[in-house]
Amino acid sequence: MKTETTIQGLSASLSPARSARKIIGFVPTMGNLHEGHLNLVREARKLCDVVVVSIFVNPIQFGPNEDFENYPRTLEQDSRLLADVGCDIVFAPSVEQMYGNKPRFTNISVSDITNDLCGLQRPGHFDGVAVVVTKLFNIVQPNFAFFGQKDYQQLAVIRQFVRDLNIPLEVIGVPITRAEDGLALSSRNGYLTEEQRKIAPSIFQSLKAAEQELHNGVSLVEVLENIKHTLTQAGFIVDYVEARTPELQKIEAFNQNVILFVAAKLGTTRLIDNLQVKQTV
Amino acid sequence: MKTETTIQGLSASLSPARSARKIIGFVPTMGNLHEGHLNLVREARKLCDVVVVSIFVNPIQFGPNEDFENYPRTLEQDSRLLADVGCDIVFAPSVEQMYGNKPRFTNISVSDITNDLCGLQRPGHFDGVAVVVTKLFNIVQPNFAFFGQKDYQQLAVIRQFVRDLNIPLEVIGVPITRAEDGLALSSRNGYLTEEQRKIAPSIFQSLKAAEQELHNGVSLVEVLENIKHTLTQAGFIVDYVEARTPELQKIEAFNQNVILFVAAKLGTTRLIDNLQVKQTV
Repeated sequence: MKTETTIQGLSASLSPARSARKIIGFVPTMGNLHEGHLNLVREARKLCDVVVVSIFVNPIQFGPNEDFENYPRTLEQDSRLLADVGCDIVFAPSVEQMYGNKPRFTNISVSDITNDLCGLQRPGHFDGVAVVVTKLFNIVQPNFAFFGQKDYQQLAVIRQFVRDLNIPLEVIGVPITRAEDGLALSSRNGYLTEEQRKIAPSIFQSLKAAEQELHNGVSLVEVLENIKHTLTQAGFIVDYVEARTPELQKIEAFNQNVILFVAAKLGTTRLIDNLQVKQTV
Repeated sequence: MKTETTIQGLSASLSPARSARKIIGFVPTMGNLHEGHLNLVREARKLCDVVVVSIFVNPIQFGPNEDFENYPRTLEQDSRLLADVGCDIVFAPSVEQMYGNKPRFTNISVSDITNDLCGLQRPGHFDGVAVVVTKLFNIVQPNFAFFGQKDYQQLAVIRQFVRDLNIPLEVIGVPITRAEDGLALSSRNGYLTEEQRKIAPSIFQSLKAAEQELHNGVSLVEVLENIKHTLTQAGFIVDYVEARTPELQKIEAFNQNVILFVAAKLGTTRLIDNLQVKQTV
């Protein structure tokens, strides 16, 4: 496995693969890797000849009160994990390498599907994601790019701008990887105290309970209220509990497949999760 | 010369060239071609193995009171001209082919350098240009893309987002092609009456006079005023007469290379032109 820290170095490393028309798979990450990320790499490994993983904590997707400075940076450990799952090239650029020292004037914004859920709580976040992911796509020029369904709204935003801008690659969404107790894996889980970590699986439990309720005919509104109640009782501060279509449009009743979305804080740590509940015919 | 009207068709046509790693040159146009466009194609022909010209009147870069509906569409004549100068592939997609029938939520905006000059008079225009040019770049995936310096601000916007987004191609700016009397060639010249066509070269004449004045030590402010006065006297309604650095930053005195910009209307037809005046050392 090679590690490249410059765009030029990465291009040189990828050049033989490109000339040979090999299938390039790309997994963009912010590092601090867990099994969720490694499953993305395993998926890429299955479909592609060459697997590139980027590790870049992107400053422009963090809000002023978010955790950019303290976001965990664990490149050595990440590299060992990536080598084990068959990553070919790690791309770990500096902020200067990605953004240069001239001012950036270009922004990419995706409207409509960013207006609520995490978009509401994190203004500018998805613009920052769209810009950095577009840059990385242009640098790596992969055939396939892999993203986790845990950040479902992010995945939808990426699918949207890839389609709207005719970016020549296929986006693959990979199901959420969970701990044995159901907690969706996330780098931010590392911020939880031992006590909070014990409470955290309530999110997934409440989503699974909601799935059952929906199948039992409980109304969507009531089901969402129940999740909120459960999580508040468990000690969360709930940001939102929402239902959407798979295309992120609002939905009033369980009359088609629905995605249930939760964002909730334990102390200062904000956790998100989602579950698709399928209409049984 | 091939003509392709679908993205899929174009991809198929370009596939052998891509596999053979040939150098692809791209000239995006809105059709109604004149010698200015043909010179872009000739430049592309010099540098590239395969030359693609797109002809697409892009609805999203026209304002509500602009001439989208009436913009001249002359595909047959354009095709003959392109065949003569050695174009390999004409890409002439429909609006539906470019924008599909699902809503577009993605926008690309370039700040700072779009705040004045044509950006001020045409809100949203450069967003529309950035989106369609990015889409075309992603569809054609050229090594080089050619743009005229007549639309200098547009060229600067394209250079900016190409750099900011790491789009993997080189942008080539080609000098303005002029009629014998100095009028910068433009599709919009066709809207001029015979009388207006006689007056139109005053723009270039006033720019050349300004160049001389600057070299004679007349102040930049006075020189700009003189252009305005000359054009107003000649019957133009002046939109702006401005001086900028080559990077489009404001400039107060002729102490470095300067670009003089003019936008002015004859009747309802808006003409633009510019001239670089070099500092003589």
